[in-house]
Amino acid sequence: KELKKKREKEEKEKEADTAGKFEVKVPKGTRDFDPLEMAIRTRVIDLITNAFKRHGAVTIETPVFELKETLMGKYGEDSKLIYDLADQGGELLSLRYDLTVPFARYIALHRATSIKRYHIARVYRRDMPSEAKGRFREFYQCDFDIAGPSPSPMLPDAECLLLMTEILDRLPIGDYILKFNHRKLLDGMLEICNVPMERFRPVCSAIDKLDKEPWEKVQEELVQKGCSLETCAMIGKFVLLKGDPRTLLTEIVSKGYFDKSVQATQALKELDVLCTYLDVLEVPKNRLLFDLSLARGLDYYTGIIYEGVLVNSGGIGSICGGGRYDDLAGMFMSSGKTQQVPSVGFSLGLERLFAFMEQREKERSSGIRGSPTLVLVASLGKNMETQRLKICSRLWKADISTEHMYQHKLDLPKQLGFAEHNQIPFSVIFGEDELKSGKLRIKVMDEHREFDVDEKDLVDVLRKEIEAYKAKMQAIAW
Amino acid sequence: KELKKKREKEEKEKEADTAGKFEVKVPKGTRDFDPLEMAIRTRVIDLITNAFKRHGAVTIETPVFELKETLMGKYGEDSKLIYDLADQGGELLSLRYDLTVPFARYIALHRATSIKRYHIARVYRRDMPSEAKGRFREFYQCDFDIAGPSPSPMLPDAECLLLMTEILDRLPIGDYILKFNHRKLLDGMLEICNVPMERFRPVCSAIDKLDKEPWEKVQEELVQKGCSLETCAMIGKFVLLKGDPRTLLTEIVSKGYFDKSVQATQALKELDVLCTYLDVLEVPKNRLLFDLSLARGLDYYTGIIYEGVLVNSGGIGSICGGGRYDDLAGMFMSSGKTQQVPSVGFSLGLERLFAFMEQREKERSSGIRGSPTLVLVASLGKNMETQRLKICSRLWKADISTEHMYQHKLDLPKQLGFAEHNQIPFSVIFGEDELKSGKLRIKVMDEHREFDVDEKDLVDVLRKEIEAYKAKMQAIAW
Repeated sequence: KELKKKREKEEKEKEADTAGKFEVKVPKGTRDFDPLEMAIRTRVIDLITNAFKRHGAVTIETPVFELKETLMGKYGEDSKLIYDLADQGGELLSLRYDLTVPFARYIALHRATSIKRYHIARVYRRDMPSEAKGRFREFYQCDFDIAGPSPSPMLPDAECLLLMTEILDRLPIGDYILKFNHRKLLDGMLEICNVPMERFRPVCSAIDKLDKEPWEKVQEELVQKGCSLETCAMIGKFVLLKGDPRTLLTEIVSKGYFDKSVQATQALKELDVLCTYLDVLEVPKNRLLFDLSLARGLDYYTGIIYEGVLVNSGGIGSICGGGRYDDLAGMFMSSGKTQQVPSVGFSLGLERLFAFMEQREKERSSGIRGSPTLVLVASLGKNMETQRLKICSRLWKADISTEHMYQHKLDLPKQLGFAEHNQIPFSVIFGEDELKSGKLRIKVMDEHREFDVDEKDLVDVLRKEIEAYKAKMQAIAW
Repeated sequence: KELKKKREKEEKEKEADTAGKFEVKVPKGTRDFDPLEMAIRTRVIDLITNAFKRHGAVTIETPVFELKETLMGKYGEDSKLIYDLADQGGELLSLRYDLTVPFARYIALHRATSIKRYHIARVYRRDMPSEAKGRFREFYQCDFDIAGPSPSPMLPDAECLLLMTEILDRLPIGDYILKFNHRKLLDGMLEICNVPMERFRPVCSAIDKLDKEPWEKVQEELVQKGCSLETCAMIGKFVLLKGDPRTLLTEIVSKGYFDKSVQATQALKELDVLCTYLDVLEVPKNRLLFDLSLARGLDYYTGIIYEGVLVNSGGIGSICGGGRYDDLAGMFMSSGKTQQVPSVGFSLGLERLFAFMEQREKERSSGIRGSPTLVLVASLGKNMETQRLKICSRLWKADISTEHMYQHKLDLPKQLGFAEHNQIPFSVIFGEDELKSGKLRIKVMDEHREFDVDEKDLVDVLRKEIEAYKAKMQAIAW
């Protein structure tokens, strides 16, 4: 017993020792977010969420971890980046790697075979983190997908493109272009260029690099991947094709470039329907680029593919992307591939958008601040906390975001400094004199304007001032 | 090479096999949330968030996992419930167990020694899950804390109690009581009852069971914990003291029950100040109970403690709780315990609230639905999708949440069924005839009211109808 006690004591001392020594930090590749960063993130997410809701999308939530089995065999060689949980007895679990596989699993588990949903949540990858490249181990994804049978597939596809413009147009990110292409057109093109079918995907992934690398380098990779120089020349000619969707489509059809491929011909028909819908929806033409070099990295696309890129972004580049994938959710259906849940959707590069907006906010404030407080109740003289509380209580009851400082002894400069530091737009100030005369002083902080009000009119006057303040903020807000 | 190919092929087949066989499910103790559950959760969270913001609170975000070291030695024997991540090289990590330790770590890392913050996020515990008891392995916590030096500690403390009533009063959860007590009063009481100081915490934890167990059982535990029968009798007398705060406080002070204890006398003075503030803030008296049997389980409290319980809740019981803990954040400060960040706060039992509100919504709808859609655009006759798109496009531009069904061939009953199923309040209906005459038909779904509008007036008329609909929903909403 004595020994046990001694051991326990030693254990405790050891713990205390460790606690004193270990470095206080967050795990590699993760970050804390402070109130201002949270406010900017919330603003971006609200704007995006409103766009999704405008189109009638619902949201769902899935656990942050899944059965390891659920994620296995879905990510190819990137599977090594999956975070596993320790085996502490029971199921083997892994942190979610994206929101797509959990969505497919959700569809299968709940037989939700027709759903238009968005999901904004964090995902986890054991990648090499790089602050400069905006690559983290814990980061937000923002997925929007329309799943379910649709005899006219291009209807949801066109809506996805429209929705991307609606979101990007409302964010002050400058010019952007939505490139699109069709996987079956790509496959038909490779067919015509005599690429064997089993090399379609590797060749696609080489072509996909054309936005970052010169043709010569891509051609090198194509040759390595077994393409003859003749094939390369044919591909090289095709992937130069890009331009206004309707114009290019008409040229391709009239010149019969792809007449020899059945699937390319089908793709062109679908693209024709898509262009009609985009016209009807008045998607701005200067935002759209039909680009035969767009291939997208992922294997599972089966129809239209698209990608949004910022123009003059200083290297941010791709900001959203997606496409149609008709076979993915079937993986989790008990009857396997025989059961299809045709789907189309896109992901927004939320962390890139956040970083962009944070940078912008530093350069030119649009009134976003960490604190939600509108009014600071400040007092002159000692022991005024009960009086401050009375005023705070009235304002809280009137649903006006209000604070005071939790101190007995307070001088006015300290309190006004607090208001300024937190960009609180209004102060209500009083001392013995004001209390006696039933008056309160309102200070409009950024206008250096002060005036007295009757105590009984406080709420009404503040409401009017706040309305004017909000209108002013609205005018500079993005 | 041949062999390698064969092995790869076998590997793939094996994978396909496994995919076919394994059970599609979520990990034990976790859940998916469908759109309706999400809508109810969002409504509750918005209401709570608004209350926090009204009091000027900011929010922060921390990673879902922390260094294992950060969590070590914080949770006593509950540490065995912590989820560890697998050691895949690099740091040893654990999923967060609560939001309090990450907050203390945040304060230390960012020197945020004065902050009023809320944090609503999921935490992870390898506990035995029980749907019936509402115990899960992944669940939401909702923490509000005021950290920072405050020469008048009872100011933030009173605000916490007010804030809890503001939140609970706006939720249709029925009657509730906020019990409170003071740790130093409890300690003084035990001192007077001759309990040795090192047994204060275990004895407290026995007393804390009085809300669930009869005195006889608690006394048994006290005897086991080394209390004499005389001590038990004294404790038994004290813990019966409960009632209206001001009345009971006056009785205790006037009768001099605790005059022998210095710390109890200090606690009574603080409670006196607290009661004054609660009066000024007009916290409803019928909600407050000064209860000397309230002890709270956690060790780290140093001042006032409180707990909210539902009356007639059918076993839900405690719904929020918290108190003052002045020494916790210091654990992460480099200078150890010498640096204090006095703090007071509370946690809301969010999952209990969610479950309660979900149940209530089943019994009596307050108009919450999963879909945000306000208008379904429906057509009569074939190949009308372009016409539907035109109308959808107008409504999307007017920021009206609108949907149509993605099909060429649609009959009206199917479309109206879709609207009804998703509780979409309005349908816009048209066929060839309407198109020719420039009219559209609006159907107000739940009123079975239909009328025609000129195409050009569509947006204005719908806006007015939607306003009326929202007012109607507001009237039944909680």
